[in-house]
Amino acid sequence: MIRKGDFVLLVGEDQKEFLVKVDYKEFSTHKGSVDLSRLVGKEYGICVETNKGVKYWVVRPVLADFLKRIKRLTQIIYPKDIGYIILKLGIGPGKKIIECGTGSGALTMAFAYYVRPFGRVYTYEVKEEFSKLAQDNLKRIGLDEWVTFRVSDAEKGFQEKEVDAVFIDVKYPERLIESVKKSLKIGASVGFLLPTTNQVSSLLKVIEKSGFVGAEVVEILLRRFKPNPERLRPDDMMIAHTGFLLFARKAKEDNQ
Amino acid sequence: MIRKGDFVLLVGEDQKEFLVKVDYKEFSTHKGSVDLSRLVGKEYGICVETNKGVKYWVVRPVLADFLKRIKRLTQIIYPKDIGYIILKLGIGPGKKIIECGTGSGALTMAFAYYVRPFGRVYTYEVKEEFSKLAQDNLKRIGLDEWVTFRVSDAEKGFQEKEVDAVFIDVKYPERLIESVKKSLKIGASVGFLLPTTNQVSSLLKVIEKSGFVGAEVVEILLRRFKPNPERLRPDDMMIAHTGFLLFARKAKEDNQ
Amino acid sequence: MIRKGDFVLLVGEDQKEFLVKVDYKEFSTHKGSVDLSRLVGKEYGICVETNKGVKYWVVRPVLADFLKRIKRLTQIIYPKDIGYIILKLGIGPGKKIIECGTGSGALTMAFAYYVRPFGRVYTYEVKEEFSKLAQDNLKRIGLDEWVTFRVSDAEKGFQEKEVDAVFIDVKYPERLIESVKKSLKIGASVGFLLPTTNQVSSLLKVIEKSGFVGAEVVEILLRRFKPNPERLRPDDMMIAHTGFLLFARKAKEDNQ
Amino acid sequence: MIRKGDFVLLVGEDQKEFLVKVDYKEFSTHKGSVDLSRLVGKEYGICVETNKGVKYWVVRPVLADFLKRIKRLTQIIYPKDIGYIILKLGIGPGKKIIECGTGSGALTMAFAYYVRPFGRVYTYEVKEEFSKLAQDNLKRIGLDEWVTFRVSDAEKGFQEKEVDAVFIDVKYPERLIESVKKSLKIGASVGFLLPTTNQVSSLLKVIEKSGFVGAEVVEILLRRFKPNPERLRPDDMMIAHTGFLLFARKAKEDNQ
Repeated sequence: MIRKGDFVLLVGEDQKEFLVKVDYKEFSTHKGSVDLSRLVGKEYGICVETNKGVKYWVVRPVLADFLKRIKRLTQIIYPKDIGYIILKLGIGPGKKIIECGTGSGALTMAFAYYVRPFGRVYTYEVKEEFSKLAQDNLKRIGLDEWVTFRVSDAEKGFQEKEVDAVFIDVKYPERLIESVKKSLKIGASVGFLLPTTNQVSSLLKVIEKSGFVGAEVVEILLRRFKPNPERLRPDDMMIAHTGFLLFARKAKEDNQ
Repeated sequence: MIRKGDFVLLVGEDQKEFLVKVDYKEFSTHKGSVDLSRLVGKEYGICVETNKGVKYWVVRPVLADFLKRIKRLTQIIYPKDIGYIILKLGIGPGKKIIECGTGSGALTMAFAYYVRPFGRVYTYEVKEEFSKLAQDNLKRIGLDEWVTFRVSDAEKGFQEKEVDAVFIDVKYPERLIESVKKSLKIGASVGFLLPTTNQVSSLLKVIEKSGFVGAEVVEILLRRFKPNPERLRPDDMMIAHTGFLLFARKAKEDNQ
Repeated sequence: MIRKGDFVLLVGEDQKEFLVKVDYKEFSTHKGSVDLSRLVGKEYGICVETNKGVKYWVVRPVLADFLKRIKRLTQIIYPKDIGYIILKLGIGPGKKIIECGTGSGALTMAFAYYVRPFGRVYTYEVKEEFSKLAQDNLKRIGLDEWVTFRVSDAEKGFQEKEVDAVFIDVKYPERLIESVKKSLKIGASVGFLLPTTNQVSSLLKVIEKSGFVGAEVVEILLRRFKPNPERLRPDDMMIAHTGFLLFARKAKEDNQ
Repeated sequence: MIRKGDFVLLVGEDQKEFLVKVDYKEFSTHKGSVDLSRLVGKEYGICVETNKGVKYWVVRPVLADFLKRIKRLTQIIYPKDIGYIILKLGIGPGKKIIECGTGSGALTMAFAYYVRPFGRVYTYEVKEEFSKLAQDNLKRIGLDEWVTFRVSDAEKGFQEKEVDAVFIDVKYPERLIESVKKSLKIGASVGFLLPTTNQVSSLLKVIEKSGFVGAEVVEILLRRFKPNPERLRPDDMMIAHTGFLLFARKAKEDNQ
């Protein structure tokens, strides 16, 4: 049953989707407006009509719906990349994870969701403004409980030790390699998001010299199809690039 | 510390990786062999040499390492697809999920990993042989505890009701639409893996008529780069197709 | 030397390109305007500045520059597809080619360019309006000399026989198979552009039954990179789909 | 009619294709053998059976069929790239083109085909062995007539001046920039094939400083579909990378 304060996803006839909180009196699009208070007490899955007669179905949002629609001050990471990062870093219930930088908190949100109920995410960000926004974004859907937000320059090191995985999304990731080494469990994985090929080359050089092994560089492309059964075909345009993902594992240095 | 019976990942200088159980006396590749008993009591991250002098690092496997290397009798789903499925279906701690068919259990394994510790996966498979294999695959890494394996024809319906998500990977998914409708929560999501465009078209037709909304069809491509900082470039070959992913949400029919 | 009436390509500092005729007094963009009459008598390769101080280089346009910028009433074919079609159909000097439909004439233009000086293109179009536009487009760059424009319904057959190749870009290509068979040399190739997977499936069924062999279905993707040496990376967005290309060869039916 | 000495393309029921000269007594595959002498005097498009009963259609090869099957000592360029290069460089009847290096001659062959009957290709190669092979490859299909083969180190300069286009495929293309500038018409285009991102970055730096403008970097991906109308889907594997293509235009330096 839909309650006041719930986030619901409105799925339109035209495939457009809107994530709204059942709180405001009215939700408006160019297709007309819906009185959200009407939804309270109704069941999920019902169909509502705007005052212009356009239909929207009211469904339960899942994590991916929140990830795409968080408030942002920074470029956010897309579900296509998040899903692969989660798997490659083995992020799951009970894990202890470091993230740097927090940005708008999209990845933080996904990490928090998956380490529940016994794990924890430690997320570092230099800019207080971003950290605040991320904190708000996570609070709104109740995931902040599993996250420690730190406003600090990670080049000086992370406070946590023996973490299960680290993910780095900053401009100069080379500068954090020593910090990563000190905090990551031996044999565990670190991941990076890197927009340019120059950054991938620079980081690979440092990684190799710093006792990380098994480097893997990938990019993930998502191609959407128009869901028309009689005229099935890919969308005309697609996102061609978000970033390269680099993963590596920490080796033991003294090798005893 | 590495214990007898642990699964470890051997990461070679040449980027080749092997998942082995520290149980057998010896592990052999064309690059020579390693006496695995030597690893017991050592720390993760150490480097071992084969009798031919080739180096392997011994690291902790994560879920993705197991997924790629399970014993299989069927085509398995790849991490690039699994990560996206997990996110789109909102599979996370505490969720109740139906999967059909089980196949070799790669996706079952991922679902089980992410619903822990309070959720559950109900997986259906017509062929007893496949179900057995999947059960073995999950037992080996201790994830069978969160899974109910059912050998049954899902066209007659699933036993569970009000589940949070359903994933279908069978030859004729259209035949399961009624079963899905009866078991899925209103407003929640179902996903499908479909190898051919004809199957996508057929299923879209049925889906639309059956009270599902917000259909999304995607394919995910993963492109690997050679991790050579001085000569960075994509691999020569890549997997060009595994399957199309179709997602939709169950709408309420009587609309009250 | 640049003469009055020449088409020149203006290449901006910001990678934007404009194809203009040195005819008009002035050319304007949001980056300011250029007095084109100043170009007459100058050499190619010079740099001109707009009244707002933005630099444009004046270079010789090649076929590809014209193809992307023809006047259009229809969806046009892109260079990525045109190049492959030309090669696969063996379109070159001296060849006799049928095209249907003409559309805005982008492909007609490329065919005309490559069959010179002794070949010929016969292009069919039902709509007189399109045929006219295409004729204008080819006249403007002097390629109409190698083309016969026919306004006619190709389902009734093509007038030419024993042509070296046929290319079809119409909504219901199945209906033209018999016409193609009557006009194409035995052993020679026909190509099709098909926007949807349903059209590919339908056409493959007809093709197989109609004495064509060696069917090949491909799609071509072009991914552009930002040409920044310090921050090399793919563009954020790309064209994800123009159409599927299907090629097949005409077999001999009586097989003597 | 098929004559002795002709090259014919055998297209199998299984989509396999073989390019053979009707010269040898017998052609053998693992699907059985065909007596080629039987083909002489027959028409194109006929179907022959191997002694194991497998059918092959005998069709006319086009340029693309030769390009894929030339004898090679080097990595060759693929039709997907060749088609785009031809268009972007404006290679067509009557053009004067420089290529460096020749390699096995696949691109030389395509250039020669398209500049006919009045144009010419000047192709440079340091290794005599490669140049010989390329010459043989072009002679075999009668295209050597339009090509001047030069065994020489292009860093010292090209002999030709005022050419319409230049294409460079060597390991250190930066070293040829001055040679290109001296031989290319002002305002005309040069193209490069570059396997690695590092090469693209290095070359872009030099290009910008050397009076070239309008740099464009692209990669072209070709995805093949299984031509099965009832089970239409992409091939399982594809070529993920051949090289990056970089194009730029020569600006006038004194700018008068």
